[in-house]
Amino acid sequence: MSVPANLNIVPFVSVDNMMKLVLAVGVETFLKELATFVDEDFRRWQSFDKTPRVAAHSRDGVIELMPTSDGALYGFKYVNGHPKNTRTGRQTVTAFGVLSDVDTGYPLLLSEMTILTALRTAATSAVAARYLARSGSRTMAIIGNGAQSEFQALAFKALLGVDRLRLYDIDRSASERCSRNLKKFGFEITVCNSSQEAVEGADIITTVTADKQNAVILSDNMVGAGVHINAVGGDCPGKTELQKDILGRSSVFVEYPPQTRIEGEIQQMPADFPVTELWQVMEGSASGRTSAEQITLFDSVGFATEDFSALRYVREKLHQHAFFEQLDLLADPDEPRDLFGMLLRAAG
Amino acid sequence: MSVPANLNIVPFVSVDNMMKLVLAVGVETFLKELATFVDEDFRRWQSFDKTPRVAAHSRDGVIELMPTSDGALYGFKYVNGHPKNTRTGRQTVTAFGVLSDVDTGYPLLLSEMTILTALRTAATSAVAARYLARSGSRTMAIIGNGAQSEFQALAFKALLGVDRLRLYDIDRSASERCSRNLKKFGFEITVCNSSQEAVEGADIITTVTADKQNAVILSDNMVGAGVHINAVGGDCPGKTELQKDILGRSSVFVEYPPQTRIEGEIQQMPADFPVTELWQVMEGSASGRTSAEQITLFDSVGFATEDFSALRYVREKLHQHAFFEQLDLLADPDEPRDLFGMLLRAAG
Repeated sequence: MSVPANLNIVPFVSVDNMMKLVLAVGVETFLKELATFVDEDFRRWQSFDKTPRVAAHSRDGVIELMPTSDGALYGFKYVNGHPKNTRTGRQTVTAFGVLSDVDTGYPLLLSEMTILTALRTAATSAVAARYLARSGSRTMAIIGNGAQSEFQALAFKALLGVDRLRLYDIDRSASERCSRNLKKFGFEITVCNSSQEAVEGADIITTVTADKQNAVILSDNMVGAGVHINAVGGDCPGKTELQKDILGRSSVFVEYPPQTRIEGEIQQMPADFPVTELWQVMEGSASGRTSAEQITLFDSVGFATEDFSALRYVREKLHQHAFFEQLDLLADPDEPRDLFGMLLRAAG
Repeated sequence: MSVPANLNIVPFVSVDNMMKLVLAVGVETFLKELATFVDEDFRRWQSFDKTPRVAAHSRDGVIELMPTSDGALYGFKYVNGHPKNTRTGRQTVTAFGVLSDVDTGYPLLLSEMTILTALRTAATSAVAARYLARSGSRTMAIIGNGAQSEFQALAFKALLGVDRLRLYDIDRSASERCSRNLKKFGFEITVCNSSQEAVEGADIITTVTADKQNAVILSDNMVGAGVHINAVGGDCPGKTELQKDILGRSSVFVEYPPQTRIEGEIQQMPADFPVTELWQVMEGSASGRTSAEQITLFDSVGFATEDFSALRYVREKLHQHAFFEQLDLLADPDEPRDLFGMLLRAAG
């Protein structure tokens, strides 16, 4: 990506260009490289400005802004969550994001983030599992086979070598589609008739359902010793997936406690329920998995730094793959203080 | 503006198209119409979700997100403030914004807002002055003749009939440029050598300087009875323009107290310093100016609802003037849950 000749221009990655970029890099390579950016940023967690997301809740959904900064770059994501959208042919979650230069405040990149969020969520799950799942984990149950499921499967394959999937969704056609979409990627896939069946023999259980309610996707009796639970779907107030008792038996790892206590599975637990921050495990100041019998749980809600990592990675990749347009987003008068003169001159 | 045929498309108003739109409508008409949207939204103030802006401060500036919603529409603005930017040929303030549908969370409009912010700030100032300045006010001093000055002048002309300007800037060439830019608009303009000189005989004093510090642009002895002060430039912590004593002698009107007490001129005063909320004056539950001798002060910092009004207005105008592009911003798979399948199919 060359430096824009004109200060008014912001590179823009459309949905079409994001797909071209992911395909040019290769989905698994993209996930693996993106994971290194996520990992890198988690390890320097303390250099980030962190704030819980700014959420506007309405009857049927939520619109959120998720900003963060490392002092040199600033990023934010706009993201909605509207489970009912699928009824009108829309996405439950859509997103876009911006990366900016802290020194000038000027945006450096505007990008679609619906696809990118799916990728970064999966990459983050797999990064966490690398520290928390038993080594040699090969079998993963995925409960909830919607838009996020294939990305999760591929991230766990790329980063951990997971190659056996056990799929369950209340809508069997979703599992079948997921299975079909993943056909070429070398998994051994079993479509299951219940979540009970799906978790049989699984080293890792990924829960990634979309309903906005307190549901029990996973009940306590379904979770055996040594399992790693990757809880992705419970990510806003009133939306959980796990029976409370599971939390009591697990070592729980989270991204950013002030946010997770409101939005994660642990919203079911008292405010002082013990959790470990993932970044501390990654940089070595806290323990991850300490025994083969331990149940580990990544209570993932998605945090702004992960979007930051994703935008930072995409910006890097644009140097090699010029899949972007130039957007005339910023006013750039010849003389900075003469904004009105620019308008007058536009009249010819 | 027709409804996009494809759900992936978001209408985008570039800087170029914003200028075309403003020129097609006419600057003064644009300001006047925009003012009716601002006025309308202030009058239904209580129907808005309000939150102080989310600011990321750095050594040389700030990046802010300003969200709000009326329950049907959601809007936010990204805006930076970097006074040193002018040294590198950049704008002190650049901005863009998004208006979304609360029911689906889908963005309906992405727009440049550098020019639009200048217009909405000026329109808001003039709307406030209509309630607070003495009727028959014709002479306005403008102290600080940077990017915002011409917009202020034209808004006060369009809404109040102000037709005599007294300009002062520490950089005389700024005043001269402002004067030159406004030549065709029918003002009687005096370029002054000091702020003292500028305020002589002024009915309204607009302060709109850019330095990020606690400055005294206007000292107490310069403010006579009956004047309306439109204090625009003091708009973040550590950045004020008025000598504190002026505040004590004035009736102070603000947009949103929790934000203004941090960012406005009244950051110099105790937390319980009495202020009146502008919306209450506008909907009739509080008094504005009550006597000809009263000094009124609009301590403006800019609030999210004003950006919301501006985006709402622009979206309306696009029905008549199709100055927008179609941006491929949102992923729109044929089957909403099949995001990964869309990616696979893009590979051909």
